Amino acid sequence: MAKFVRVDMATKQVKVEDVPEQYLALGGRALTSQLVADEVPPTCDPLGPFNKLVIAPGLLSGTSAPSSGRLSVGAKSPLTGTIKESNAGGVTSQKLANIHIKAIVIEGKPAEQGFYLLKLNANGAEMMPADDLAGKGTYEVTAICRERFGAKVGVITIGPAGEMLMLSAGVTNNDSEGSSSRYAGRGGLGAVMGSKGLKAIIVDAAKTFDAPVQDVQRFKEAAKKFSQMLLDHPVTGQGLPAYGTNVLMNIINEAGTLPTRNFRFGRFDKASEVSGEKLAEVAIARGGKATHACHPGCVMRCSNAYPMPDGKVCSPVEYETAWGFGPNLEISDLDVVAKLNYICNDVGLDTIEAGCTLGVLMEAGVLSFGDGQAAIAALEEVGQGTPLGRVIASGATNAGKLYGVTRIPAVKGQGIPAYDPRSCKGNGVTYATTTMGADHTAGYAVTANILKVGGFVDPTKAEGQVELSRNLQIATAAVDSTGLCLFVAFAVLDNPEGLPTIVEMLNAQYGLTLTTDDALALGMNVLKVEREFNRQAGFTSADDRLPEFFTIEELSPHNTKFDVKNEDLDKVFDF
Amino acid sequence: MAKFVRVDMATKQVKVEDVPEQYLALGGRALTSQLVADEVPPTCDPLGPFNKLVIAPGLLSGTSAPSSGRLSVGAKSPLTGTIKESNAGGVTSQKLANIHIKAIVIEGKPAEQGFYLLKLNANGAEMMPADDLAGKGTYEVTAICRERFGAKVGVITIGPAGEMLMLSAGVTNNDSEGSSSRYAGRGGLGAVMGSKGLKAIIVDAAKTFDAPVQDVQRFKEAAKKFSQMLLDHPVTGQGLPAYGTNVLMNIINEAGTLPTRNFRFGRFDKASEVSGEKLAEVAIARGGKATHACHPGCVMRCSNAYPMPDGKVCSPVEYETAWGFGPNLEISDLDVVAKLNYICNDVGLDTIEAGCTLGVLMEAGVLSFGDGQAAIAALEEVGQGTPLGRVIASGATNAGKLYGVTRIPAVKGQGIPAYDPRSCKGNGVTYATTTMGADHTAGYAVTANILKVGGFVDPTKAEGQVELSRNLQIATAAVDSTGLCLFVAFAVLDNPEGLPTIVEMLNAQYGLTLTTDDALALGMNVLKVEREFNRQAGFTSADDRLPEFFTIEELSPHNTKFDVKNEDLDKVFDF
Repeated sequence: MAKFVRVDMATKQVKVEDVPEQYLALGGRALTSQLVADEVPPTCDPLGPFNKLVIAPGLLSGTSAPSSGRLSVGAKSPLTGTIKESNAGGVTSQKLANIHIKAIVIEGKPAEQGFYLLKLNANGAEMMPADDLAGKGTYEVTAICRERFGAKVGVITIGPAGEMLMLSAGVTNNDSEGSSSRYAGRGGLGAVMGSKGLKAIIVDAAKTFDAPVQDVQRFKEAAKKFSQMLLDHPVTGQGLPAYGTNVLMNIINEAGTLPTRNFRFGRFDKASEVSGEKLAEVAIARGGKATHACHPGCVMRCSNAYPMPDGKVCSPVEYETAWGFGPNLEISDLDVVAKLNYICNDVGLDTIEAGCTLGVLMEAGVLSFGDGQAAIAALEEVGQGTPLGRVIASGATNAGKLYGVTRIPAVKGQGIPAYDPRSCKGNGVTYATTTMGADHTAGYAVTANILKVGGFVDPTKAEGQVELSRNLQIATAAVDSTGLCLFVAFAVLDNPEGLPTIVEMLNAQYGLTLTTDDALALGMNVLKVEREFNRQAGFTSADDRLPEFFTIEELSPHNTKFDVKNEDLDKVFDF
Repeated sequence: MAKFVRVDMATKQVKVEDVPEQYLALGGRALTSQLVADEVPPTCDPLGPFNKLVIAPGLLSGTSAPSSGRLSVGAKSPLTGTIKESNAGGVTSQKLANIHIKAIVIEGKPAEQGFYLLKLNANGAEMMPADDLAGKGTYEVTAICRERFGAKVGVITIGPAGEMLMLSAGVTNNDSEGSSSRYAGRGGLGAVMGSKGLKAIIVDAAKTFDAPVQDVQRFKEAAKKFSQMLLDHPVTGQGLPAYGTNVLMNIINEAGTLPTRNFRFGRFDKASEVSGEKLAEVAIARGGKATHACHPGCVMRCSNAYPMPDGKVCSPVEYETAWGFGPNLEISDLDVVAKLNYICNDVGLDTIEAGCTLGVLMEAGVLSFGDGQAAIAALEEVGQGTPLGRVIASGATNAGKLYGVTRIPAVKGQGIPAYDPRSCKGNGVTYATTTMGADHTAGYAVTANILKVGGFVDPTKAEGQVELSRNLQIATAAVDSTGLCLFVAFAVLDNPEGLPTIVEMLNAQYGLTLTTDDALALGMNVLKVEREFNRQAGFTSADDRLPEFFTIEELSPHNTKFDVKNEDLDKVFDF
């Protein structure tokens, strides 16, 4: 029943094929990474004909499993040169699963200019010209497609940044309310889609929760139990549903690991002005939403909808984005933060990378720290394709190199997000070693370092961080394959029934007899496949390091440097 | 007697110290690479405090050995991330040797803004503020310094590009006539010097040919014999002295390996308009020089002085520069080529990289192929530090990445020079595998591929290229350590007495008993040291590859692709 949709953009031919045996038990990141590893030459040009863009729902996506609607997008990254999986909420993962599409594989490269659209429904797949959509922002494209193909379709698209092959362009899809800003933002996958000449994918599916399940009753019970676990945990049941991800702003600031002024300081005195609490207050006062669900069936509802003074709504303003455009730039005006966020969403740019890049350009003196209007004007140049716009969209590493900046917060070419590695050292280990380039989601040690979820490891000390990061990276690779939101980890880490219940859902759905060890083995295998791809692409332990300045500059208020030893970093993948 | 001058730019302290035993037999590239390998952490930030800039005359520099005045500049490259040695003619190598300075080692990094000047003479070394020189072009800086310190001083300096830490900034020094354009251009070593806050080095030496020689008579005889060999060979005795390096333009065009329109074609129908023959005609008509010597005692005299319509003189216009700004951009106006060359010389930018970068930007549609005035206007933005100027100065790879270009002619981040690797495959092997990033001088297979010097290996075939490149890379590393100009290789390759005579000069100068095998062993050791540095810096065989497009696009007129197998490329360093 499950299908691969293969699209050759050189010929515009679409093939719908049965999923080969060896891919049947994979989904989400496990599937995108395995397909990329199997079919993409590791040394190929990420924007050339040999790269492939793979889009896959998770194993549990499209069922009634709570918070299971993550969509994985994979390819060789033009930003990092590594293998890449970036996942997002939104409605398309569930819709794809409900029309039994296990993966979309976009191959080849058109010889001619022009953009196309791929339409998928239960009856098959169809390619059609989309030059009328070219150059348009993601909000407009999504609105046009929902008008043209029905208000309930899911729309996966790129903005002008992706069309212009910009290295930090993302791939987005819409939420239930039609907002197009559920981004697989990291690693420039939007540029890969752009290089293929594919502007949008329409996913037309009547149902959301009816993906095939073998043992319906057993599945239902497990899903209900899992849902209750999420509701019972203080983070997933209270913190996130009250203030969304940006509940972290005050917490991370208090912990002294909020990167401020391009990672100069660990606290920002105006953090509360861009916090989740403040956001909720303003959003509600303006008729927006303090929280809402990014996809149907999510119980955490950690997203939001922030009405801006110009009448438009930025949805969502996530913590990492609020950090990147807020404390990182010494900007404390939430309206400016939301505006920068909105520009990125519309033009199709990763907000974390944009925040890091603007920080680096402020470090270089191109802009001034704290000058929100200048930041807005600069970011608007991305869509215009000016040289400065190109610089901004090229990411922190490239922009920093152009300006001779030595304080570039990035690993393997990808900007470091919202937690300073000198006082959240578990995250530092993850940034340095993950197969993805600096990525907080790849092994979110904020759990044990700051939130005291799943135990406690002193964030200012080197001890214990490698083991913490390793375990989280393995668990994350497994979770990213299920379609479950990573945030379920808060509950799972604190509940011995957590992982067994996920496994129970998988067994009920697929008629399997997996153990929790099998689930962890899946995570380990994903990492091994990804790491081998990177090795063949030319990555070595020399790439598994943080930038020099983190090891020689102390960060206030804890006055710590990153001091996890290189030989210990090299043990992360000893499993 | 021989000294190291060590300058700590953090404290501005200068130490003159005896050369440690293990460095006494090294010079030029062998010395800069060994010092960098011994003292610079391979993974350090090239513009951070741990990199060191090493400047060293060759072993024979400052003697009467003909054409022995090359100056080596080494560091970890900010452009490539590899170890780097770039060498240049000019007067300072000989002058340094005559005040017994074997190497200048510039270390550390100032905490404060500002630029300094280092003055060296027989009595010692002195640091002085040079903020009055900051921002000035190399022509003006050199003129000011020759006025301030005496017309006969040698001036090593960087332009605004180096001050602004631009990744393809070079380090220059002047010729006997005061022109400041003898560039160690490649790899961004000017940015390393800029990062140290060092604007210029004044080398004040009364003598040019009086470096210590142990057996004067024996040396004199060997030098005379070597000089005669150069005069007797058709390339070094006739071709170069008549038309300079740009004598190659028509030859390489005829051979069908002249990269045209950013490496689209192998021939340019207007190549003769920017050829050495044409240059000589125009230069002489305007009162310039078809050829002149870049340093005293050179018998090949392959440089030139080209008077421009604005009254200024561009000296020199080398073949690779004329190619980069000519056929590569489909520009056939020699005055435009000279103007672009002059701008680079003054602002302190590598002309080859600038040519490659403008080609890539034309590929991206930022400029139009053939539009010389637009190219001039764009290149002038480098000195202004505009975003476009920064993009241009960042080199072909970075600029290409910003614009999503897949046809980027570069290896390890450095632009490929004036010989297409698809129809001069020996050079292709060198570009792919040299420790330096794409570099024609590292193993100049044009000799046997095109000029039939040192035998003949069919340039359009894969067979024999690995062995050819390997042997040339070894020999080049040895030659680059002597201070001899690489062009002596034309004569040496065709004359069984060539290498023994170089060894005889070294033995006479240093009282040694080296054999020709020892000389080749020196070359091999240089390569091994460099390659080990790169390995520790994170380079692998995946980096020893040409860009994808050379393997999938045929080049006219021979309609060949680059097809040397990866496993064969990996054998280059099997020695």
